[in-house]
Amino acid sequence: MVSATPTDWQLDPKIAAETIPVGDLALTRVLLATDANYPWLILVPRRPGLIEIIDLEQTAQVQLMGEINVAAHILKSTTKCEKLNIAALGNVVAQLHVHVVGRHHSDPAWPKPIWGVVPPIAYDAGVRDGLVDTLRRGLQIEYIRN
Amino acid sequence: MVSATPTDWQLDPKIAAETIPVGDLALTRVLLATDANYPWLILVPRRPGLIEIIDLEQTAQVQLMGEINVAAHILKSTTKCEKLNIAALGNVVAQLHVHVVGRHHSDPAWPKPIWGVVPPIAYDAGVRDGLVDTLRRGLQIEYIRN
Repeated sequence: MVSATPTDWQLDPKIAAETIPVGDLALTRVLLATDANYPWLILVPRRPGLIEIIDLEQTAQVQLMGEINVAAHILKSTTKCEKLNIAALGNVVAQLHVHVVGRHHSDPAWPKPIWGVVPPIAYDAGVRDGLVDTLRRGLQIEYIRN
Repeated sequence: MVSATPTDWQLDPKIAAETIPVGDLALTRVLLATDANYPWLILVPRRPGLIEIIDLEQTAQVQLMGEINVAAHILKSTTKCEKLNIAALGNVVAQLHVHVVGRHHSDPAWPKPIWGVVPPIAYDAGVRDGLVDTLRRGLQIEYIRN
């Protein structure tokens, strides 16, 4: 199910510095933001030169929506979040990326959008690794089912 | 191309109070936020009870992506915005709605997300009506082409 990554594609260094990889779906690399304030996935299409969702042709847009759907389902079932926030902003990092964030009414930014509200806090390494493992298993299962 | 609106669907009153209608695509009602700080469309699927994108079945998710694509293209060509911000948040208003916002480097929130940064400012009525007319024509043309 997973396409090869084009050799001329590279993950933006700022995104790479603030995330850890969960896995590759057919179009996107799925990453966990290393900010324990929120369960927060970032999906980055592995194609060079993309900035906007509308830079993708229609079939790839449909694929992106399918991968957002899978990631959102897994994040919701794993974290029991009360709301999902899904957004493609890209005002700071130009490389097209889609945020899939699980929100809890008790999180430090609720009900505001998360960006820039409080500084990131580090995960406990064991918690982070357990979350990544759970997400990884869930993505594989859901993606095959999809 | 436009489906009938279910009789049990109603636009959330808070969204209605802060927007004016541009028109209906097959799935969504397209609205212009009445905040002259940003060219800002809101797409609301005309189906009762939706909160998350993942509440839609896959075919409707694909349709939603197609309508986001059309709205984003029209907004970009009409406003010459430098970036698009596309987001489904819904932390304040639960009814599923997708923001499609044209960003300029000179806008009052750049590069932050727009929500809650500065108070809305009123459009000049003539400017607003001209923008709605242009968007309406563009949506019809692009939607047929899509």
